[in-house]
Amino acid sequence: MSKTTTLADPRRERRKTDDKWRTALTCIEPNKILVRGYPLDEIMGRLTFGEAIYLLFMGEVPGPGIGRLMEAILVSFIDHGATPPSTLAARNTATTGAATRACVAAGLLGFGRYHGGDIESCFQFLDTGLDMVRKGASHHEAAEKLLEQYKGSDEPPPGFGHRFHTRDPRAARLFQMALELEVEAEHIQMIRAVETVLNEDSTERKLPVNIDGAIAALCGDIGIPPSVANALFLISRVPGIAAHAEEERVRQTPMRQIDPKDHTYDGPSERRLPERRK
Amino acid sequence: MSKTTTLADPRRERRKTDDKWRTALTCIEPNKILVRGYPLDEIMGRLTFGEAIYLLFMGEVPGPGIGRLMEAILVSFIDHGATPPSTLAARNTATTGAATRACVAAGLLGFGRYHGGDIESCFQFLDTGLDMVRKGASHHEAAEKLLEQYKGSDEPPPGFGHRFHTRDPRAARLFQMALELEVEAEHIQMIRAVETVLNEDSTERKLPVNIDGAIAALCGDIGIPPSVANALFLISRVPGIAAHAEEERVRQTPMRQIDPKDHTYDGPSERRLPERRK
Amino acid sequence: MSKTTTLADPRRERRKTDDKWRTALTCIEPNKILVRGYPLDEIMGRLTFGEAIYLLFMGEVPGPGIGRLMEAILVSFIDHGATPPSTLAARNTATTGAATRACVAAGLLGFGRYHGGDIESCFQFLDTGLDMVRKGASHHEAAEKLLEQYKGSDEPPPGFGHRFHTRDPRAARLFQMALELEVEAEHIQMIRAVETVLNEDSTERKLPVNIDGAIAALCGDIGIPPSVANALFLISRVPGIAAHAEEERVRQTPMRQIDPKDHTYDGPSERRLPERRK
Amino acid sequence: MSKTTTLADPRRERRKTDDKWRTALTCIEPNKILVRGYPLDEIMGRLTFGEAIYLLFMGEVPGPGIGRLMEAILVSFIDHGATPPSTLAARNTATTGAATRACVAAGLLGFGRYHGGDIESCFQFLDTGLDMVRKGASHHEAAEKLLEQYKGSDEPPPGFGHRFHTRDPRAARLFQMALELEVEAEHIQMIRAVETVLNEDSTERKLPVNIDGAIAALCGDIGIPPSVANALFLISRVPGIAAHAEEERVRQTPMRQIDPKDHTYDGPSERRLPERRK
Repeated sequence: MSKTTTLADPRRERRKTDDKWRTALTCIEPNKILVRGYPLDEIMGRLTFGEAIYLLFMGEVPGPGIGRLMEAILVSFIDHGATPPSTLAARNTATTGAATRACVAAGLLGFGRYHGGDIESCFQFLDTGLDMVRKGASHHEAAEKLLEQYKGSDEPPPGFGHRFHTRDPRAARLFQMALELEVEAEHIQMIRAVETVLNEDSTERKLPVNIDGAIAALCGDIGIPPSVANALFLISRVPGIAAHAEEERVRQTPMRQIDPKDHTYDGPSERRLPERRK
Repeated sequence: MSKTTTLADPRRERRKTDDKWRTALTCIEPNKILVRGYPLDEIMGRLTFGEAIYLLFMGEVPGPGIGRLMEAILVSFIDHGATPPSTLAARNTATTGAATRACVAAGLLGFGRYHGGDIESCFQFLDTGLDMVRKGASHHEAAEKLLEQYKGSDEPPPGFGHRFHTRDPRAARLFQMALELEVEAEHIQMIRAVETVLNEDSTERKLPVNIDGAIAALCGDIGIPPSVANALFLISRVPGIAAHAEEERVRQTPMRQIDPKDHTYDGPSERRLPERRK
Repeated sequence: MSKTTTLADPRRERRKTDDKWRTALTCIEPNKILVRGYPLDEIMGRLTFGEAIYLLFMGEVPGPGIGRLMEAILVSFIDHGATPPSTLAARNTATTGAATRACVAAGLLGFGRYHGGDIESCFQFLDTGLDMVRKGASHHEAAEKLLEQYKGSDEPPPGFGHRFHTRDPRAARLFQMALELEVEAEHIQMIRAVETVLNEDSTERKLPVNIDGAIAALCGDIGIPPSVANALFLISRVPGIAAHAEEERVRQTPMRQIDPKDHTYDGPSERRLPERRK
Repeated sequence: MSKTTTLADPRRERRKTDDKWRTALTCIEPNKILVRGYPLDEIMGRLTFGEAIYLLFMGEVPGPGIGRLMEAILVSFIDHGATPPSTLAARNTATTGAATRACVAAGLLGFGRYHGGDIESCFQFLDTGLDMVRKGASHHEAAEKLLEQYKGSDEPPPGFGHRFHTRDPRAARLFQMALELEVEAEHIQMIRAVETVLNEDSTERKLPVNIDGAIAALCGDIGIPPSVANALFLISRVPGIAAHAEEERVRQTPMRQIDPKDHTYDGPSERRLPERRK
């Protein structure tokens, strides 16, 4: 058996046609399951789900700081209410009496170009800027250069702007945690420089870093490649989509016409976490 | 705003046609996101992903014991190698060059009658037995009664038997944790009684409790309803499906013919967790 | 090679583990494709798509009458405007910028219990009635018996009732064609008897045969089994779902909130087919 | 109501926020369904499924020649045996006991970059060549220019080459029909010129026009835009995917391991269509 590989390294197998094909994720033997070499029953109760996800994709158990960031990244995107089109696709599927798995599948299919697709393009955007910095530009100069092509465009740069929020509380919290856990590095510096340049002209409406941008920058700084960051994004929203499908099934009548603008929240009012959690 | 509701309570909305429809999951206001009443940015870094999933579905932050069990349940099913048909559907989709979200959707659709569907039927099976116990039968008598219909059948009772394992290490670990954390109750007692009766006749091959059965019994004992247990099952395997789709894309050539029996594991050999993790 | 088999006959393969597994649909050899034995390039231009679909599922080329009915069945369900939840799931997926295939997949997942699921249950419902007829009851008596369990229920019997139509023009046309082409037989007689009994009590609102019921009855009379009838149903709506996904992409802005009640039709006014088509 | 629009014209709605959104496909009123203005019950029995699909996407009833080509295009791609990854994704989903709609959805998700994706890229490839012709190049010169970037590449140009066939019988038949029905025009000329140049060097293995290329060229010549051609492609394979899912369910045992190379065809031997069909 070879050394651990992450999914970041795109070296395709070169093998003779009569060779077996290979997988490095999980080894199954009778009464034994090894995830990246660790017995699954030993991991249970010792790694959190977020740490196990990191292990599965990256090949190693994360250190405590990276582990906490993984949890925060996964929690940050867990749900965004009833109006994202992906959630509405799932609710429209649920109202037909479809199984939860079908609703979740329908919901996931909406993570496309305009919805979640920003993570991989923001990664590329930041890397383009960091190339300029490596060639001698300041972060500010690189940001100005990057933003030239978006001048006069309706479309914001990848990782910026939100339909609802002028300051995305999730992005701010991720950056704060990155600072506290001392993992902030060049990708976060780059995205902050872009945000500064983008909002220098005070007559424009604010275009804040959004959660896609924050995840892209943070993943860049802790060594998670773009395709894995994109997978984390999908994974993190599955609970939200499933919960909306469940709620549709449990609280609503079948075959209803769902107007996304016509709903109200009737859950608990704003509250604080119990003291021991802080 | 009303008191917290879990998704366990199937009271459908009765509302006048001009009322708004209601959701109790997540409240979205400009620059504010409340999940079940808690600000999402306050949850980030304070709840794990597993705890946040519990909060989303059940309406409250879990206590520490339930929280640890949630993580263990979610980790227990994270991956089972390359041969489950759901994983193969995802790999066959990945070999066409499809996006990860499409591969995950294709994989999820395979969680049907023969694959993961045991959780809800095992729940019902155990509840039927527990009804007998409440009417005066012993657990052993109830188990014998429950198993009558499976005598002479090829099909094992729901929650028992596995293609690969004669003793499922994941089920054993979940039961051990339930005991240690003192949440073991009537559902686990019932499934153990069934296992005892089922394997009394030593001439038969062993039919152990499988992971579906263990999750059903454990969820029953900690108050998670069947439909939510089923959703947790889906959520827990998404990382595995996504990782296989990624690995297919990264390591294999496109449009290949995938023979599930023809593969080998080339990841790390069996290893132990670092000391601080134990 | 063996004789032609339809997909109606559920005899599962019993084979030794070292045997090859078998398919009777399409034979592929270099530069040759045989669908049910017919060279695909010979079928092209000679069979219509509807006839080829019949061949694929049923194993033989249909006669001219059955061929025309196949086309009519497939056309009857091709689209039903923007409000079916399946179509709305596809439009919500399309607004995220997803590929057409993903939108169609999301749409198909909504053909569940309350939406299209009536075909298989209506088949069973009619067969239960026909069993009574075979044992000596009149069609009217059988219908009365069948409807007893729906007395006082909110839910109509399978194959009856429609959200929009009090007389489904598609069902009426299918029955007219079955009469003209002289294929009307016991299933259509049975469903007509149920419709008569159901609407005898003039104080109730009319519960007409719907398109699901008409397709079930017609398929029953021309020898198409329930599972194939259900597949035809799916196949027939795919063009409608795909066209709505296309229209969403082409005419609307991305990431919009889709209120199904808030739309209007701006296509051509009612018109007649060219004379040669009648 | 406005004049008929095809889905080819990407003029997005510019509307005030309080306007209704618009659809031009199908008008639903109580007891009336108009597809592109034609009553659906009048179309049934008068248009074939293929003609109705054309009407839905293109806005008008096709003439007899175009109608015959539509049928041929749809039939040409109806099935390609058990080995395409899309079909295998559907079979792997079917073996879990999933519903047919879920199997078809899983299958469709595989029509991606390497599988069916050639239609839109071949369209673009041919249009690039035709631009050169319009500027004075001969078809042969344009073809040589187009092929320059593929020199020394492993990847064939879009619309050329097939895993199994060195001469695709479906492509040949489509071109023959286009000639007979006198619709052959510049796109077919262009693709033939590319094929000629591509195979001039006799030492290379033949790279024939494949079915994707033939459909792209034919659609180009009869005015069907790329996105609609792509939708037709999806629609045409749905029956094949559904039939394989059905066959898996009916003939095989659940939860089996599907090796695509290990199957054999046991349907009827090669046969000819009945005389009246020729």
